[in-house]
Amino acid sequence: MKISLSETAQLLKSKDNILLLAHKHPDGDTLGSSYALCRALTGQGKKANVICDDEIPKVLRFLANGVEPLLFEPEFIIAIDTADIKMLGDKLRTLYASKINLCIDHHISNTLYAEKTMLDDTAAATAEIIFRLLKEMRTDITPSIADCLYTGVSTDTGCFRYSNITSETLRIAAELIDLGADYARLNKELFETKSKSFAALERAALNSIEIHFGGLCAVLAVTKEMFLQSGSNDEEFDRISALPRQIEDVLVGAAIREQKNGTYKVSVRTNPPMNAAEICAGLGGGGHVNAAGCTLEGTLDEAKEKLLKAIEAALISEKKLIVG
Amino acid sequence: MKISLSETAQLLKSKDNILLLAHKHPDGDTLGSSYALCRALTGQGKKANVICDDEIPKVLRFLANGVEPLLFEPEFIIAIDTADIKMLGDKLRTLYASKINLCIDHHISNTLYAEKTMLDDTAAATAEIIFRLLKEMRTDITPSIADCLYTGVSTDTGCFRYSNITSETLRIAAELIDLGADYARLNKELFETKSKSFAALERAALNSIEIHFGGLCAVLAVTKEMFLQSGSNDEEFDRISALPRQIEDVLVGAAIREQKNGTYKVSVRTNPPMNAAEICAGLGGGGHVNAAGCTLEGTLDEAKEKLLKAIEAALISEKKLIVG
Repeated sequence: MKISLSETAQLLKSKDNILLLAHKHPDGDTLGSSYALCRALTGQGKKANVICDDEIPKVLRFLANGVEPLLFEPEFIIAIDTADIKMLGDKLRTLYASKINLCIDHHISNTLYAEKTMLDDTAAATAEIIFRLLKEMRTDITPSIADCLYTGVSTDTGCFRYSNITSETLRIAAELIDLGADYARLNKELFETKSKSFAALERAALNSIEIHFGGLCAVLAVTKEMFLQSGSNDEEFDRISALPRQIEDVLVGAAIREQKNGTYKVSVRTNPPMNAAEICAGLGGGGHVNAAGCTLEGTLDEAKEKLLKAIEAALISEKKLIVG
Repeated sequence: MKISLSETAQLLKSKDNILLLAHKHPDGDTLGSSYALCRALTGQGKKANVICDDEIPKVLRFLANGVEPLLFEPEFIIAIDTADIKMLGDKLRTLYASKINLCIDHHISNTLYAEKTMLDDTAAATAEIIFRLLKEMRTDITPSIADCLYTGVSTDTGCFRYSNITSETLRIAAELIDLGADYARLNKELFETKSKSFAALERAALNSIEIHFGGLCAVLAVTKEMFLQSGSNDEEFDRISALPRQIEDVLVGAAIREQKNGTYKVSVRTNPPMNAAEICAGLGGGGHVNAAGCTLEGTLDEAKEKLLKAIEAALISEKKLIVG
């Protein structure tokens, strides 16, 4: 059942011993939103706690600073920024799947698995919803809470760069700054710092970029060895996948990554009029218009050839490439 | 003489045949601000024009779309976002140096060379001042003007990432979005697209990065040949200079560029507590605490060695590096 913001505020007022669940592979929004709400609830004298299936990334650990991990029997369980029960991860799902009282989320794809759901898919980040919720609850937004919410809003929007932002996103960020969010430090740590592993992976990936079809297509390829040597992780590879499409005039950017089992995971990103989902569908995959994926087998050269043929056909069919 | 925003608005009301001067090596703020004001003035039936010593970068040409280059004898000349008369470039300086009636700027270093100066050094961009000025003048802010101002504000703040922003910056950007600024397209073109020359220079520069002193220092070096091969330019090299300091744990990042005359231009960027100006002062250069520069002679290896010695000494003196 979907509920409104004010119903959510009312509901939370009547509850105590609240457990907040962040999604697996946690990002700035699920953690920032969870810790903001946790701080607000404990600030009102309630018991609250945040848990997550995966370890908190180093750069986001400050969100939990000073939050005591309380022990209590949870009476009310809230999933934060989690569109699907699968996103909780195996451990949390096994423990809580049938017991989730509330979900607060901004993903249009939310499967409404919780007893009640506060969904606002116009919000660029769940942290925007939590901000409005705390105002509705007349909670004091301390500088620490402002830091958490600013982290959520800024990380889910690439620091206000993505097309998901609205003027409301910027106004909320402005208010968070006025409430004491340490935005200069946060921006530097979150957006101006590269981990050593990311720097190593980026260097290897950029070196592997090949340009095809007169500059309309750029493809990078990362082998198991390159990935292992860099010490990088999935989240960092996701960011690497965006690099080929960033090059001027490129309509189709692709990132190929060799998996542990020797197959190749391919991520395709396109600029209009090219359709990433169509290109990947022809290769047994799928996704969105601008970002899609598929898995290919064989040697790296074979995988690359299959992919390039599909991209070539798509460019020809869009009349971006002339045959002959 | 410094004048206020409302005095500036009054002054502009009484003037016609207005020539706007953007600074040399024009960026999004000088051009966005100039074209926004030009459009507003012509929208009021006045004659106005923007000129600049250098060509407008390709990615910023849309700012001038639909602005007719009018021919008229200028009666009132305004320098926009130009802190020093030297920044106008040789041609404009020769023509107009003694005739500049007004300067609108946000640089604290403004030398007050104009007859009158509207200076607000708390603004993150001159476009913020122009936005307030147009409101003061009760000018209609059309979507094209909003695009120009959004470009100014976003480019001077790294898309709202730099520490120069305030909550006011974000509120102005929010209002510009509501007024029709095509922010999704602008963000993509301005911040998610790399020119081919930038991509080539970045690749070469990242490959040249050396890590020193246990990860506290990262240095890149670009030779004349590398620079020439990439087809890149000074503005792009400036952005490259920021890369070494972005790596996790690096306190001193440096970028060495071989000049046409064979000397080496060095750009040093630091994180606290390291002081870039002090490091460069010891090498005959200077600058700010976080960003400074100097010029070194000899071979590349000799230049690098001189630089590394100065950095090592600074790290030791800050007790970040232990001798022995």
